[in-house]
Amino acid sequence: MRAEIVSVGDELLKGERVNTNAAFISRALAGIGVPVGRVVACSDREDEMVSVFAESLQRADLVLVTGGLGPTRDDRTKKAVEQLLGRGTELNQEAYQNLAVRIKTYGLEMSPSLREQAMVIEGSQVIPNTRGSAAGMIISCGKQFQNHYMVLMPGVPSEMKAMMEFTVLPYFTGLSKTIIRHTPIKTLGIGESRLAEMIVEVEDRLPAGTTLAYLPHAAGVNLMISTIGRDRDEVDRDNRSVVEAIVLKADKYIYATSEVTLEEIILGMLASRGFTVAVAESCTGGLVASRLTDVPGSSSCFLQGFVVYSNQAKHRTLGVPEETINKFGAVSEEVAQAMAIGCLEKSGADFAVATTGIAGPSGGSPEKPVGTLCLAIAQKNSSDLISRRLVLQGDRQQNKLRFSEAALRELWHFLRQG
Amino acid sequence: MRAEIVSVGDELLKGERVNTNAAFISRALAGIGVPVGRVVACSDREDEMVSVFAESLQRADLVLVTGGLGPTRDDRTKKAVEQLLGRGTELNQEAYQNLAVRIKTYGLEMSPSLREQAMVIEGSQVIPNTRGSAAGMIISCGKQFQNHYMVLMPGVPSEMKAMMEFTVLPYFTGLSKTIIRHTPIKTLGIGESRLAEMIVEVEDRLPAGTTLAYLPHAAGVNLMISTIGRDRDEVDRDNRSVVEAIVLKADKYIYATSEVTLEEIILGMLASRGFTVAVAESCTGGLVASRLTDVPGSSSCFLQGFVVYSNQAKHRTLGVPEETINKFGAVSEEVAQAMAIGCLEKSGADFAVATTGIAGPSGGSPEKPVGTLCLAIAQKNSSDLISRRLVLQGDRQQNKLRFSEAALRELWHFLRQG
Repeated sequence: MRAEIVSVGDELLKGERVNTNAAFISRALAGIGVPVGRVVACSDREDEMVSVFAESLQRADLVLVTGGLGPTRDDRTKKAVEQLLGRGTELNQEAYQNLAVRIKTYGLEMSPSLREQAMVIEGSQVIPNTRGSAAGMIISCGKQFQNHYMVLMPGVPSEMKAMMEFTVLPYFTGLSKTIIRHTPIKTLGIGESRLAEMIVEVEDRLPAGTTLAYLPHAAGVNLMISTIGRDRDEVDRDNRSVVEAIVLKADKYIYATSEVTLEEIILGMLASRGFTVAVAESCTGGLVASRLTDVPGSSSCFLQGFVVYSNQAKHRTLGVPEETINKFGAVSEEVAQAMAIGCLEKSGADFAVATTGIAGPSGGSPEKPVGTLCLAIAQKNSSDLISRRLVLQGDRQQNKLRFSEAALRELWHFLRQG
Repeated sequence: MRAEIVSVGDELLKGERVNTNAAFISRALAGIGVPVGRVVACSDREDEMVSVFAESLQRADLVLVTGGLGPTRDDRTKKAVEQLLGRGTELNQEAYQNLAVRIKTYGLEMSPSLREQAMVIEGSQVIPNTRGSAAGMIISCGKQFQNHYMVLMPGVPSEMKAMMEFTVLPYFTGLSKTIIRHTPIKTLGIGESRLAEMIVEVEDRLPAGTTLAYLPHAAGVNLMISTIGRDRDEVDRDNRSVVEAIVLKADKYIYATSEVTLEEIILGMLASRGFTVAVAESCTGGLVASRLTDVPGSSSCFLQGFVVYSNQAKHRTLGVPEETINKFGAVSEEVAQAMAIGCLEKSGADFAVATTGIAGPSGGSPEKPVGTLCLAIAQKNSSDLISRRLVLQGDRQQNKLRFSEAALRELWHFLRQG
């Protein structure tokens, strides 16, 4: 089974939106052994869509379309499919109920243009939309297209992702004969080339059907070990042997071999030991707290955060001595330590993490350039007080992200040793 | 003149890389009045590239290709073009010099596979690579393809971008006769279908050459007004008239008609009046503070934030009375108001914004379901104290984002009226 992806929307052709949907769908399909042959982004003009859909259906067994299912006039995907297949639409009751509930929640009245979102192509299987109002569809396109399939989904990423996960992948998993196993290896505090040197022997002796990809991200690099084959046990065994060999070589830098975030790992370590944490942030501006509270259930371990941007706030809220700020500067390991200690006292938490730095673009100096981060970690009833100074490179938002990553990384190291 | 973009590389089809190059090229071409008809991502197999290039050259006057010009085995773009056009390659002296200098810098020796990067398609114009070693090309494809153009560039974003800026755009600016003007209209607090109803009269009477696109995002919808034509004054006038007509209809919901974020608008309003702000967050967990501090220079207006996740933190840090929490619950307008007042007092800021709610997935009740947000805004030396209660729908991270958007939106409304 071979797939193509069609991303509908003039905003993609004008470069107003980057096509992240296609990358997500490709990865998801790879997971069930369905390779993607082409990705086409096209206009939402009806005639153009009809041509693109017809061409893709000739080449591929499965054509996944995103976009053009909403309530406004530039949403014409269904019209194009009606024309292409010579079919009409029909009201789907399940989709209509979902729509009616959503409309009521927002205090709106049902209207013909809204109702249109519960209309599906005749003879299609509806894909429930758990995050929005437009129904998705799986359509078997009949003999004229060798019974190839079309899948229609909204362009809103969260709606499309939920549809892929809950309906589309389970549906086509049964139809695909290939087994693929992907295992991520998530690392921290090591760059791509050093990691490659460390695991060169494993990479030189990969079993047939297994590949190793480096996936650099804003704050480091992850690995993806992929094994493809026809026998489930063999695929699982080969995949596992490579993952284990890499863990042996680079254990120190690996925080997970599954799709889990660093924040989840940290909160899990805290929860299992009954510990609580609080954060004091200057340069990260609340991002460390926001990342920790992205994790469901974080309230059991995360007590509070202090975003102390001004010097006055550092002093008044956390009791950082004014003389420490004057002597060492707001961006210093001394101030980071004082912030961590103040945070511990004010919050009553078991651990406190503090950040102070220069995210840029201005505020740097030769001694403390843009990208300088000072961080500290303090523990209740303990004299252990860790602090670090790093210099990173990036624009303001990248720096904030990397600063927050560095703070979480240090906390992870601290908890791992303790 | 009409363009298509072909992005070559298996990593795009596996979803290992998001196609940001295509978005960049589209935006750059829009700037010189060249619309993009399709974007195709395809495999680096030679036969597949030949088909894709031929199809695009039939439809478009200009086909821009990225990827497959490097020194490794999977770089076969030139081979495909040779086959398609029936031409050979020739060594380009300028490209060879550039290559030789770079190779020397890295301490390497010239080799046949490296030298290959200075070979260009016969009769092409070379595009100097100021950031890397592979030469780019502008090729007039001859009568068999109605003298349409191909542009070959590397897939490395920095190399491609420099080639676009210094060579490709200047070259085709002269050949393009079309002018395009895009104006974004950024809205808040209104959904796609209600906005569409509100501006239906404008949409019904768009001037020829002007289109209106809805760009939904996590917390609302933006519009993009695009006008294409041959006369710059006419294009500008038509575009402006539509933007003005929409602003008249929906002024209440519009915060910008340029590429600016809500955070930037808010900080600009504060700065211009010499005001400062602080935030007190429970359910948004630091995200409001983090968004405000994403803006360069935010330290002049943003004093500090309090992430008060536990009830104890709300009481101890911000002085929220325990009886208020016990009587109304932590998620209540009363607690939000007390948080805002406490935040004002502790920070000394002119404005305070407070959020408390249930991001989910657990913690909801029939009375206060997941997605409930209570927010409040307080102003120094003023009895004005605004609070709101909303119920939104989404997963935890969507809720946090929409909660933060709602808080910023209320602050914007407050500042706008004040």
